[in-house]
Amino acid sequence: MTSAGVELQNDCVLGIDIGGTKMAAGVVALDGEVLSVVKIPTGGHADAEALWDALADAGDEALRQAGVDRVAGVGCGCAGPMTWPEGVVSPLNIKVWREFPLAARIHEKWPHGPARVHNDAVCVAIAEHWMGAAKGSANALGMVVSTGVGGGLVLAGRVYNGGLGNAGHIGHMVVADDGPECPCGGRGCLEMYAAGPRIVEWAQQRGWSPDEGANADGITLLASAEGGDEVAIAAFRRSGESVGQIIASCAALLDLDVVAIGGGLINAGNLLMQPLLESFDRHAGFRFVRRVQILPASAGQNAGILGAAALVAAGDVYWTQIRTT
Amino acid sequence: MTSAGVELQNDCVLGIDIGGTKMAAGVVALDGEVLSVVKIPTGGHADAEALWDALADAGDEALRQAGVDRVAGVGCGCAGPMTWPEGVVSPLNIKVWREFPLAARIHEKWPHGPARVHNDAVCVAIAEHWMGAAKGSANALGMVVSTGVGGGLVLAGRVYNGGLGNAGHIGHMVVADDGPECPCGGRGCLEMYAAGPRIVEWAQQRGWSPDEGANADGITLLASAEGGDEVAIAAFRRSGESVGQIIASCAALLDLDVVAIGGGLINAGNLLMQPLLESFDRHAGFRFVRRVQILPASAGQNAGILGAAALVAAGDVYWTQIRTT
Repeated sequence: MTSAGVELQNDCVLGIDIGGTKMAAGVVALDGEVLSVVKIPTGGHADAEALWDALADAGDEALRQAGVDRVAGVGCGCAGPMTWPEGVVSPLNIKVWREFPLAARIHEKWPHGPARVHNDAVCVAIAEHWMGAAKGSANALGMVVSTGVGGGLVLAGRVYNGGLGNAGHIGHMVVADDGPECPCGGRGCLEMYAAGPRIVEWAQQRGWSPDEGANADGITLLASAEGGDEVAIAAFRRSGESVGQIIASCAALLDLDVVAIGGGLINAGNLLMQPLLESFDRHAGFRFVRRVQILPASAGQNAGILGAAALVAAGDVYWTQIRTT
Repeated sequence: MTSAGVELQNDCVLGIDIGGTKMAAGVVALDGEVLSVVKIPTGGHADAEALWDALADAGDEALRQAGVDRVAGVGCGCAGPMTWPEGVVSPLNIKVWREFPLAARIHEKWPHGPARVHNDAVCVAIAEHWMGAAKGSANALGMVVSTGVGGGLVLAGRVYNGGLGNAGHIGHMVVADDGPECPCGGRGCLEMYAAGPRIVEWAQQRGWSPDEGANADGITLLASAEGGDEVAIAAFRRSGESVGQIIASCAALLDLDVVAIGGGLINAGNLLMQPLLESFDRHAGFRFVRRVQILPASAGQNAGILGAAALVAAGDVYWTQIRTT
């Protein structure tokens, strides 16, 4: 390591993004530059410790690639549920981790600074506010429409956590009283209308099927929609309309400046965005509601790492030490 | 005036509550005790100045009744819309005031301290947090179900204003995509399902009518429901169910601790509250959503005055000088 590298190290944080399918670790400079990224699959580990060891190795490798041996702290976004702000996690889709003391283990491993764990969707929203489409706005909703629908809030210029750190669960706002039952235990949740797997199911129930050999997934459904398949087009329309309706509700409740939308489904472009904006337009009345800017997410592929890093790199804005209840 | 009265005066603020039907002014001690209340009708004034003069007289009378000649400041809740935080108001139902510089006039009249104007529903929510059902909670929604449906938010221990001071418009969150058109310009707004005049209309369309000589209003409809009229009962059920659905959405988005519900319709008791809680129960899945306490408002008849007073008396919590956008 060069002496220049040694000087740099206090200007860097380690950002970690843990999802059900893959995990990523990267070194991020305090100005948001991503200096290294290491990705590994989440599955295939025998137990909690094996998964932790793999993650710890990925973090060390990210430090090595960035040429630093020490960081100012570690931020981590993880799939929920979790106990916040303690960072004890039991991710639905990571069965080997139940009540796993993630923040404590991170701090033990990289002790030179704080270890902060928050929900992954909140970290993505933070990334949009720190470096993406919501940059500079005081009141922003960042949301992800993908295999699920999640989100996070920056209100009055700071991340808003809610009483137990769960604020931003926009996917479980209610689209319709008589909507489908949701695995969360509720009914009519946005996620049941808008998420990728749900719109694939909806299309299949109406006769759509993938070409032989192709998977019944969002990518195949999008190809069908782009090829003019009416059921596939209607499936994306239904997703977009439900998201637009809920955004109108959020803007009425929160008098928002910006909504940044990311996630795989925005690859559908106007097949999703046009019905979304039409629905928003139908439901948004007051001028203060209609003024909200609805923008595609722009923090990029490393948004999860960036937002996690921001928990430390811009902790005065994005981290609240003490639970507010 | 006694010398005791003179000593007291710096411990008091003037709270003003301006609605479309009546206005109230009261002197409130810093501990929330209401020392005087003066109420006058809003209507019947020839022009903006005549209405202002009547309000100014009511304020002076409230000071006189409380035995003070000077207050630490004046807080005022007013029907919207308004420019916030400047306090320039154009209340929908007060036609003589258009772009009326209310905060400036208040300050001119009572110059010994700040003059702060906010939306009336926000002030009622503040009253619930300062002295009522939401006292001590960090994350609270206060709402009013009456001739309209309004609300206000206290988040992370402070009032949340939104970018233009309009946060809390829960009455314009969307219950159903294909719901009725709303005067706000949207469609399917909660207010169209839950407000008093709307449920009276709904009942009338289904054959309900008031007894001869009685008004077709919420009070008469409630008497019918209490007498077992099925259409009247269904009208309150529809209101309660729509409110319960929206509360579930708010709790999912904001991870709330308390929702305090006030306004004339809660006089319907279980005719409203039981369907409300059943609907909430149907739509609230996650434990963090279900944990929210749904309580009747308890700040009392003077909630509007109390919340307005709190803009000054507890301004560190309830007032933000600078717009956050």
